[in-house]
Amino acid sequence: MDFDPKLDLQQVREIDVPVADVWRGWTTPDVLMQWFCPRPWKVVECEIDLRPGGIFRTVMQSPEGQNMPANAGAYLVVEPQKRLVWTNALGPGYRPNPPSDDQQMGFVFVVDLRLEAMPDGGTRYHARVMHATEAACAAHAAMGFEQGWNVALDQLVALMKQGG
Amino acid sequence: MDFDPKLDLQQVREIDVPVADVWRGWTTPDVLMQWFCPRPWKVVECEIDLRPGGIFRTVMQSPEGQNMPANAGAYLVVEPQKRLVWTNALGPGYRPNPPSDDQQMGFVFVVDLRLEAMPDGGTRYHARVMHATEAACAAHAAMGFEQGWNVALDQLVALMKQGG
Repeated sequence: MDFDPKLDLQQVREIDVPVADVWRGWTTPDVLMQWFCPRPWKVVECEIDLRPGGIFRTVMQSPEGQNMPANAGAYLVVEPQKRLVWTNALGPGYRPNPPSDDQQMGFVFVVDLRLEAMPDGGTRYHARVMHATEAACAAHAAMGFEQGWNVALDQLVALMKQGG
Repeated sequence: MDFDPKLDLQQVREIDVPVADVWRGWTTPDVLMQWFCPRPWKVVECEIDLRPGGIFRTVMQSPEGQNMPANAGAYLVVEPQKRLVWTNALGPGYRPNPPSDDQQMGFVFVVDLRLEAMPDGGTRYHARVMHATEAACAAHAAMGFEQGWNVALDQLVALMKQGG
């Protein structure tokens, strides 16, 4: 992967969960809703059509009960248990999205998630988030990308260890 | 295809050229440069990496010799002789593009080209161009989309009939 430190954020971890479970966590709405955003935030809607050009849409809800509007995204690459690429720049059917109303996440990004099985049964987890501009990348970092994504991933690990 | 008349432009024609030649015209730089923009405009550079996430970049030159800057695009779907989807919203490796400097084409779009072999050896040619907003779609139409794409396609047909 061609990491650009001015435009990209990334999360690289080795986690004690098999790739099959990580894949299930990312691609099954009922499961994704349980871990995908750091509590006390919640995912209250999730729509997944797991194929290139298929929809990936979530609605997050603040602790105060406010739903956050966001453009529906689309998958670009779906390689089961290996790689998942999606973006909010395009919606289902590859239709380009209009500028977002979302105050927080009103920029486009592409997430490139790669999973690799470890000899011990765990997963090398590598998520890269690419932005169009340095300003968007910096804004995403300032929003707490690193902490937010790590807390969410911890939630996925805990969920899977509970047999989720 | 889910055509939205407010957001999409399209070109549907039956042409007297086999699908293999149409595909070659769209996917081979030396060939594409000969037909892709209406003369006296020219394509003076063309870069193609024909796979999902691969680059599609052209530089057009005005009759006065001015090169038009534009973001490099990327292919999204490559189904040889059947379907080609590309966008200027993302660049190679699916990296999201910054807003374009291009005065004319400073909006994002996705082109979804479908080819179907006709019993007579010709091709049913269906290009759909999707825009993010009604304003972008209207601007593209006002720039002369219909005439421009038809003249270019006529150039492709003529080129192939000359054995191009």
